Amino acid sequence: MKIGFIGLGNMGGPMALNLIKAGHELAVFDLMPASVQKLTEAGAQAFASPAEVAAQDIEILVTMLPASAHVRTVYLGDNGVLSTVRPQVLLIDSSTIDPQTARDVATVAAKQGNAMLDAPVSGGTGGAQAGTLTFMVGGAEADFAKAKPILENMGKNIVYCGGTGNGQVAKIANNMLLGISMIGAAEAMNLGVSLGMDPKVLAGIINTSSGRCWSSEVYNPYPGVVETAPASRGYTGGFGADLMLKDLGLATEAAKSVKAPVTLGATAQQLYQTFSNLGHGGLDFSAIIKMIEKQG
Amino acid sequence: MKIGFIGLGNMGGPMALNLIKAGHELAVFDLMPASVQKLTEAGAQAFASPAEVAAQDIEILVTMLPASAHVRTVYLGDNGVLSTVRPQVLLIDSSTIDPQTARDVATVAAKQGNAMLDAPVSGGTGGAQAGTLTFMVGGAEADFAKAKPILENMGKNIVYCGGTGNGQVAKIANNMLLGISMIGAAEAMNLGVSLGMDPKVLAGIINTSSGRCWSSEVYNPYPGVVETAPASRGYTGGFGADLMLKDLGLATEAAKSVKAPVTLGATAQQLYQTFSNLGHGGLDFSAIIKMIEKQG
Amino acid sequence: MKIGFIGLGNMGGPMALNLIKAGHELAVFDLMPASVQKLTEAGAQAFASPAEVAAQDIEILVTMLPASAHVRTVYLGDNGVLSTVRPQVLLIDSSTIDPQTARDVATVAAKQGNAMLDAPVSGGTGGAQAGTLTFMVGGAEADFAKAKPILENMGKNIVYCGGTGNGQVAKIANNMLLGISMIGAAEAMNLGVSLGMDPKVLAGIINTSSGRCWSSEVYNPYPGVVETAPASRGYTGGFGADLMLKDLGLATEAAKSVKAPVTLGATAQQLYQTFSNLGHGGLDFSAIIKMIEKQG
Amino acid sequence: MKIGFIGLGNMGGPMALNLIKAGHELAVFDLMPASVQKLTEAGAQAFASPAEVAAQDIEILVTMLPASAHVRTVYLGDNGVLSTVRPQVLLIDSSTIDPQTARDVATVAAKQGNAMLDAPVSGGTGGAQAGTLTFMVGGAEADFAKAKPILENMGKNIVYCGGTGNGQVAKIANNMLLGISMIGAAEAMNLGVSLGMDPKVLAGIINTSSGRCWSSEVYNPYPGVVETAPASRGYTGGFGADLMLKDLGLATEAAKSVKAPVTLGATAQQLYQTFSNLGHGGLDFSAIIKMIEKQG
Repeated sequence: MKIGFIGLGNMGGPMALNLIKAGHELAVFDLMPASVQKLTEAGAQAFASPAEVAAQDIEILVTMLPASAHVRTVYLGDNGVLSTVRPQVLLIDSSTIDPQTARDVATVAAKQGNAMLDAPVSGGTGGAQAGTLTFMVGGAEADFAKAKPILENMGKNIVYCGGTGNGQVAKIANNMLLGISMIGAAEAMNLGVSLGMDPKVLAGIINTSSGRCWSSEVYNPYPGVVETAPASRGYTGGFGADLMLKDLGLATEAAKSVKAPVTLGATAQQLYQTFSNLGHGGLDFSAIIKMIEKQG
Repeated sequence: MKIGFIGLGNMGGPMALNLIKAGHELAVFDLMPASVQKLTEAGAQAFASPAEVAAQDIEILVTMLPASAHVRTVYLGDNGVLSTVRPQVLLIDSSTIDPQTARDVATVAAKQGNAMLDAPVSGGTGGAQAGTLTFMVGGAEADFAKAKPILENMGKNIVYCGGTGNGQVAKIANNMLLGISMIGAAEAMNLGVSLGMDPKVLAGIINTSSGRCWSSEVYNPYPGVVETAPASRGYTGGFGADLMLKDLGLATEAAKSVKAPVTLGATAQQLYQTFSNLGHGGLDFSAIIKMIEKQG
Repeated sequence: MKIGFIGLGNMGGPMALNLIKAGHELAVFDLMPASVQKLTEAGAQAFASPAEVAAQDIEILVTMLPASAHVRTVYLGDNGVLSTVRPQVLLIDSSTIDPQTARDVATVAAKQGNAMLDAPVSGGTGGAQAGTLTFMVGGAEADFAKAKPILENMGKNIVYCGGTGNGQVAKIANNMLLGISMIGAAEAMNLGVSLGMDPKVLAGIINTSSGRCWSSEVYNPYPGVVETAPASRGYTGGFGADLMLKDLGLATEAAKSVKAPVTLGATAQQLYQTFSNLGHGGLDFSAIIKMIEKQG
Repeated sequence: MKIGFIGLGNMGGPMALNLIKAGHELAVFDLMPASVQKLTEAGAQAFASPAEVAAQDIEILVTMLPASAHVRTVYLGDNGVLSTVRPQVLLIDSSTIDPQTARDVATVAAKQGNAMLDAPVSGGTGGAQAGTLTFMVGGAEADFAKAKPILENMGKNIVYCGGTGNGQVAKIANNMLLGISMIGAAEAMNLGVSLGMDPKVLAGIINTSSGRCWSSEVYNPYPGVVETAPASRGYTGGFGADLMLKDLGLATEAAKSVKAPVTLGATAQQLYQTFSNLGHGGLDFSAIIKMIEKQG
């Protein structure tokens, strides 16, 4: 299948490569020549703008962009996708953006005959490279069925979340709860250890009790508790604190739009902002425990 | 075995009955005659004070009391356990109290030759009746070994947490994380549903993703998502919001004593206090979602 | 002077009337015929769109609109002010909106030769009627000098805040601090009274000590402490809780854009959102104490 | 008049010296010989225990101690004040402690014929030396009248707060609001400056608007805004962050005892705990803005 791909950064680059490996023919665009080069070396054909990519004889177009503003520009801008794309080309945006922008752009696309799916991912750059991402997909069910085999070339779990924008909703709701429970796990681990418990014993009890969560079980923020977690390798790799901060920002913004109180979500956002300003935004997000532990 | 049991309320009553069912002989005390009567009808012998119970020819003494002040009085007061108890009687306190009081009382007991375990429980009145409680036990390992068969008459999971007080530490650390993740799950569910998602679909995605926690998976606060959860039966039964409030109070108090920041834990406490003041303290603690949802 | 005025609601209506009283000739527009009628009865001339108002032979144009989106539409939209306004007409936007939008619109206006001031107000509908508003003005100092006499027809304090957007910045920074200190005053008053103090004695001490703030001194949330405050008349009139919620939303959004942590500001926003969802958004914002007091 | 004085540290020492300067005869005690020596050099007579001080022919006894536990020990302990003090000696405790302990100790004192006032102070070590402290006094009005002339030797404002314990209540309610508004002022100043405003202009606007508070006006946390504030001298001197942390801890503990929600108060406590753990507890409490500003 001939596929367009726009946005070839740390996530989009390896995702596009996995499509090539699966035998697809790719038409690509990115603002950074170095990012484009990796793809052309692997056999992709490069173009000078989103509009040119979209003008090719493609069946599906995938975008992977940093934020809502980029998505608006790439789809709706002067040299944007919608200015040239043929009707019936299925559009898939894998950026993590606010649900309202996802719905707005999909509405414009629908008016000119293009179905669009929002399909944000989780799994990080490791998952992008390994092709083991989770895709949370919003849009019409028939379009999901059409996209699924393609997404399976890049990910392991392809989850249908309901109508347009719901992929974004699922992602930000999940990640808000993740941010909250990570800080909660960090506070609980630090509290218990400060009161005299062994961290592994404490984690063992929590993980078989009602405090159990992914952040305590799989990704415990206390060093040495889970050998494979970033906490056990100096909080490197993993999911950056600044990326968690971005997702919490999307969650509180979306919450404001529907008048949904998110007191812990908003507090988590501010704590991550404080942590980032202290200079730690590049560490894995479980490193927030460093702002909780007594220093020195 | 002959066992003393002090504190025969909603939790202690059924726990003591399970000891009788297991064939033990019980000497009991409670301030409420009605509570005592249920036990004497089942074969227990009642006494007029903690001191009198402790003066019997018992091998083990179990207490189940509402708060730290009661534990101090029952053990250290004028007619308290320590005024009459023989050396070598093993003392087991199953009350949920602050770790410092647990350690203080155990230190006094040790001085007169009595080993003491702190052994708070989780599992609620249902678990107390069914004999399926979890016991989190702090104290010397040899004493734990001696207590374990007795505790198994009242519970299913008997977990050793390390030295004196660590049973309390494990309980409050776990329950603080539980309170945080419950509010987090409530915020995330309400946010996602407000943004247009089906609650079951959203819960399904969270429960297979990184937001997964006991509060979303086993005890989801959104009605109808988990059929067996209190949310699906009007938030009745379960673990009362006021009990969660008490445990969060113990957690923040203990955190203060060791200078451990618990920003989300303290916020969770205040939200449960607000919820309680609005008149809902008797509902299951997952009902906190009612303070998050848009009314009317 | 001939002045254009767009947005004739609860705030804009009385402001425009005060300009007429001061002898100015007004060209007006509002979507609501009833709002327009009050002004035409007072001598204003009505037009069918922002573009038509802007096309008149005016020297100054004032807008008073609900939110950022309206400001963008009224200035930049198809029938917007900038499509017809003559160069050199001074534009004054008194809406409370985010600083970035204020700066964006002013930049577009500047490109076609129109200076623009952001001039949000405080003082509420009472201040709008009495002509005692405070204007916080951002823009070039020469333009401020030109606008000041006109603004003095509508307000008492006309404060220069620096470059474009700074009027908005001052307003949201002030109102965020106001929201925080109001909740703080409510918590402190309720705490002290719950612990046995007379509310007037407590307020008297705070107001001569380091806890002193406008919210405790002028606008105390406890009924009966300040006779002229909304708390002493059932929390009617004053500055609505939902307006405070809006301003806190602008503050946290602007904070996100510059990576400024506002932990208490964000928590205040969520508490006002919760309060609004409980059905109290129409009360004065000092009524937040009702969510803090023990009910019944 | 002959006066007993127990607790001669950074606050108590200069306070006792001021009593000597006013012509009173002092009987003193402190655990630290160096602290005692400063007083004996000034003419005070030293004794070996609180009981010995209390056994002297004194009319009034003043205590100034670090925390509730010390107050209990000094008054109720084996060599405590109440073991020897003559009836009718007026007891004045100037420590900042929880209201319940103040009430408990006063109740015991009353039983043996000693009236007791709680009289915590504000004004810091500077105020203690200069004799310009504010005393917030709880107890019987007649006892307050008797104490007032003595307290005026050590302070400038002697405020009657109502019955026993209300001095403590007033102090912690005021200081909780102070802690909240200081963080609020820090967030607002940092937000406004980050968005492009001049700090002095911003403070000027806030201080003539509804955001006005002691923390913005007298003690602004932004360097250079108020020349006499600690922020303008590297956050040295003033009221230490760890002392604010202590008072916020007393406030949230007292709030728990009366079921009063203090969401912002508790969050402020946790932010000061975090700030203290980062190593800054010795700085003036307005230095909390350093945890809010972007570093580097």
